[in-house]
Amino acid sequence: MLAEIITIGDELLIGQVIDTNSAFIAQELNGIGASIYQITSIQDDKAHILQAFKDAESRVDIIIITGGLGPTKDDITKKTIAEYFDDTLVRDAAVTKNIEAIWKKYVRQNLLQVNRDQALVPSKATVLMNELGTAPGMWLQKNNKVFIALPGVPFEMKKLIVNKVIPKLKETYKFPFILHKTLLTYGLGESTLAQRIEDWENALPETIKLAYLPSLGSVRIRLSSKGNNAQEVKANIQAEIDKVVPLIKDVFVGFEDEVQSLELMIANKLIAAGKTLAVAESCTGGTIAEQFTQHAGASAYFNGGVVTYATASKIKVLGIDKTLIDTHSVVSAPVAEAMAKNVRELFNADYGVATTGNAGPSKGESDAEIGNVFIAVATKDCVVSASFMLGSARQRVIKKAVNKALEMLETEILKP
Amino acid sequence: MLAEIITIGDELLIGQVIDTNSAFIAQELNGIGASIYQITSIQDDKAHILQAFKDAESRVDIIIITGGLGPTKDDITKKTIAEYFDDTLVRDAAVTKNIEAIWKKYVRQNLLQVNRDQALVPSKATVLMNELGTAPGMWLQKNNKVFIALPGVPFEMKKLIVNKVIPKLKETYKFPFILHKTLLTYGLGESTLAQRIEDWENALPETIKLAYLPSLGSVRIRLSSKGNNAQEVKANIQAEIDKVVPLIKDVFVGFEDEVQSLELMIANKLIAAGKTLAVAESCTGGTIAEQFTQHAGASAYFNGGVVTYATASKIKVLGIDKTLIDTHSVVSAPVAEAMAKNVRELFNADYGVATTGNAGPSKGESDAEIGNVFIAVATKDCVVSASFMLGSARQRVIKKAVNKALEMLETEILKP
Repeated sequence: MLAEIITIGDELLIGQVIDTNSAFIAQELNGIGASIYQITSIQDDKAHILQAFKDAESRVDIIIITGGLGPTKDDITKKTIAEYFDDTLVRDAAVTKNIEAIWKKYVRQNLLQVNRDQALVPSKATVLMNELGTAPGMWLQKNNKVFIALPGVPFEMKKLIVNKVIPKLKETYKFPFILHKTLLTYGLGESTLAQRIEDWENALPETIKLAYLPSLGSVRIRLSSKGNNAQEVKANIQAEIDKVVPLIKDVFVGFEDEVQSLELMIANKLIAAGKTLAVAESCTGGTIAEQFTQHAGASAYFNGGVVTYATASKIKVLGIDKTLIDTHSVVSAPVAEAMAKNVRELFNADYGVATTGNAGPSKGESDAEIGNVFIAVATKDCVVSASFMLGSARQRVIKKAVNKALEMLETEILKP
Repeated sequence: MLAEIITIGDELLIGQVIDTNSAFIAQELNGIGASIYQITSIQDDKAHILQAFKDAESRVDIIIITGGLGPTKDDITKKTIAEYFDDTLVRDAAVTKNIEAIWKKYVRQNLLQVNRDQALVPSKATVLMNELGTAPGMWLQKNNKVFIALPGVPFEMKKLIVNKVIPKLKETYKFPFILHKTLLTYGLGESTLAQRIEDWENALPETIKLAYLPSLGSVRIRLSSKGNNAQEVKANIQAEIDKVVPLIKDVFVGFEDEVQSLELMIANKLIAAGKTLAVAESCTGGTIAEQFTQHAGASAYFNGGVVTYATASKIKVLGIDKTLIDTHSVVSAPVAEAMAKNVRELFNADYGVATTGNAGPSKGESDAEIGNVFIAVATKDCVVSASFMLGSARQRVIKKAVNKALEMLETEILKP
């Protein structure tokens, strides 16, 4: 059972907007056993849309379309779908009600005719009611194939996929079982890691596909398999995991679906232990705090943080000794250690994490080389620090520093 | 002159990775006059890659391929390109040298045969040297069409596009001139805005395409045009801008290519005025600080910030009066105002910005409704605050609150 995603919008083709919808849809469809054969992004152009529909229909069973359903003139997806299905647009009473309700609740401006006309849908379409917006989702079947059109607004699209599209697909089709298990590793390069597990990789059964996903300081190893017997697929993947984990146990930190990210893994460990955290950020500028607080439940363990960007604020807000800064420079291990120690105390936390460094592109209030970052973690009993050279591209330096800080914090938390 | 982008990798089709490369490439190609006709994401599958190459070649002149050039067995793009061009792989001496140099500088682990083999390239290819990584870019011409293969690592791909691909494309082809001008507006809904400028939109010449891009609290209006005479294209777009700006002057904040984002616009204004900023964040958890510090040069105006997530830290770190919190609740206008005032003083800044609210999904240390956020901006002379209801989805509440805080800060900065 194959699917394709077609995302429509000039903004995608000129690079003004990144297509984040496709990854979400692909994950959700994989979750019920539908594989994505291709993702295609095209312009708001009638001829091209019609051709893309035809091409996709020739290859797969399920075609999911996002974008081009807005109220303004540049949005032509709905009309083009009607043309493809040789259909006309009719006004849907339930959608009209939904639009009026949304307008009443969220919008203080007048309900315009273009908004009312969002209730026009192809007569052959089953409406997938969009409770979060005025553009309805639409489900149209043709020659045993289904076209599903959704608004491009990620928030609205996601709710429609989860609450309407996935249940309806499960009712309509029989899917196999797809399983991806991704192992997160930190500290070894992609090819060195691959060499270490080469014998295991060569002996993998044909039904299991392996992929390496390197990124800043970490490599993810993904095992994928598909089959009609879910128990068998799970058992086969588990058997391989049981073989590979002992080979990489020094660099393996967990499974992606369980930890999702290092900060969530840390969050879970802190919550379980009833411990708390505070961060003092210089070069990472709030990004570590943001990593934790973006997730619900952060208030259970995240006491707070300071972004002491200027040297003066390190002294005034964090109480760092000016002599220490003058002696060692503001970008130094002793300053990182003092920051970690002081922020821990300031926020009454169990763990204090601090960063000070030069993210570039120009030198700041220190002589530190661009890319040089000092990170420290303080606990009740000790302070550890380390120095890193993280390249010269500002946003990569920041991201790598955040990852290193999380790694160091995790190491401290795991200590008995 | 049309181009297509083909991104290769199973991780894209299962939704594990979002394709951010295509948007960057599209922007760069638009910059020299090459329009992107289609973006296609496909799996690491030989038959599918060959078919996608053939389809793209039938439609456009320039085919840019990213991904699948790594050293591990799951990467098959290079071999498949050699097959498509009926070619063999040969070892390139310059690429070998580059790999050895990178290994020596950045990698402490052994140089393996799989890394050495990244110097194998199709004999018909012109190598585009990748100074940041071991996978070389490749340029292959066929029937007056060009295939350009680049590594999928965004950092490496970007440098190759800017330094190698764009100059070589400009040498090889003659391109028209493409211009996009995007007007940023805040405060009006998409359809209300469209209604207000309807007469202007209906009178637009056929050579200019208009698009509306709504997002959280803002709508972008994009005008696009293309032609062989750059001066004429620019003048035509400018004439329309001169007509539309007076119609929307109450909600128009600037052009996207000039301000890129509200925080950069604020940054520029602060730097020009020699003023400084400090932020006290509760529900936004460091995201406002991160917005500013992600950009180079933040140290010129960003003194720092605190993330006082817990009520206790608001009292201890920011010195908020406990009675004030007990009287009004921690999520209230008076507390937001006190936070803005105190953080401004703590960091010796000209402007203080503060947020306190409930981002959800559950209620925190207050009785505030989920989605209720108070934002305050303090200057030497006054403190302003406002209350917002920002929905119920945590990450959207945070983003909307950040946008509202930036809007309020901008309003204060613009005051004479």
